[in-house]
Amino acid sequence: MIIVNTGNGKGKTTASIGQIIRFLGHGFKVCLIQLFKGEGFYGEQKILVKLNNLDFFSFAKEHPYCIKGVSPAEAADKCLPAMRKLKELANSPKKYDLVVLEEFNIALRDKFIPENEFVDIVKQLSQKSNIIVTGRGSPDALINIADLVTEMKEIKHPYKEGIKAERGIEF
Amino acid sequence: MIIVNTGNGKGKTTASIGQIIRFLGHGFKVCLIQLFKGEGFYGEQKILVKLNNLDFFSFAKEHPYCIKGVSPAEAADKCLPAMRKLKELANSPKKYDLVVLEEFNIALRDKFIPENEFVDIVKQLSQKSNIIVTGRGSPDALINIADLVTEMKEIKHPYKEGIKAERGIEF
Repeated sequence: MIIVNTGNGKGKTTASIGQIIRFLGHGFKVCLIQLFKGEGFYGEQKILVKLNNLDFFSFAKEHPYCIKGVSPAEAADKCLPAMRKLKELANSPKKYDLVVLEEFNIALRDKFIPENEFVDIVKQLSQKSNIIVTGRGSPDALINIADLVTEMKEIKHPYKEGIKAERGIEF
Repeated sequence: MIIVNTGNGKGKTTASIGQIIRFLGHGFKVCLIQLFKGEGFYGEQKILVKLNNLDFFSFAKEHPYCIKGVSPAEAADKCLPAMRKLKELANSPKKYDLVVLEEFNIALRDKFIPENEFVDIVKQLSQKSNIIVTGRGSPDALINIADLVTEMKEIKHPYKEGIKAERGIEF
């Protein structure tokens, strides 16, 4: 099954973490591939690295929009090993019951990874593993092949009123 | 901060689990109060019970719409200790950084718990703890006092095409 968590609201990443915990609870094996997330910053990383049956990879830790001095070309370069990892999973015997691709929608939106190639690999990998792709602005090509798509829609958000991101809530 | 995860789509509960993991990763203390969730069924329960700094309570394990032979009056009765627990938290010194109230929106919708009383307690408790309330159909009175509201909106769902709920995905 291909699952997409998209939209401008909160809950895309936290829902994928919850899904990982749910899979692990059943004794399933999970692979998490994160893009654009600095290490030692997000609370969940500290718990996830300690759990059994979860392999955790992090690539392209800096996104040009968030970190000054990182160019789009550099970010695209740093997404290459993530794509290699994904191809490796698609071309090997089944290893994981769930593969979570964190913020890959952002990499697609910013053309750091090629859309057609990504969609083909996801289709191939979905023959053996459940896949979750998160990030706002999921492209139609991915939505079309997905089985379950949820839009996390912002109804009310305090950061619009000038309140800063809080530890635990946003990271 | 008062957070509400509502809407007809997937991700309300999984996002709250992800948020719990994020808080725990920072060393914060969390209380999870679940309604209408049978034990030993949901994968996440098996992981959550093992984590430090998390107190986990489960009440009214059977909802009349899901389990035959449970009347609405019985369900309302079984929600009483959940409300007592919540009042106790609101009236005691701060114990938790995050209190998650799973499916309380459903209990409000079905009038198993009194809306005015619930809203007052949540307001009081939010002076010392962050609160997440999940479940579809969140009442306006709760949305009005909330700081962050996300609607999980179903864009595409495979169970409409006759595919059954899967272990890991839905429970």
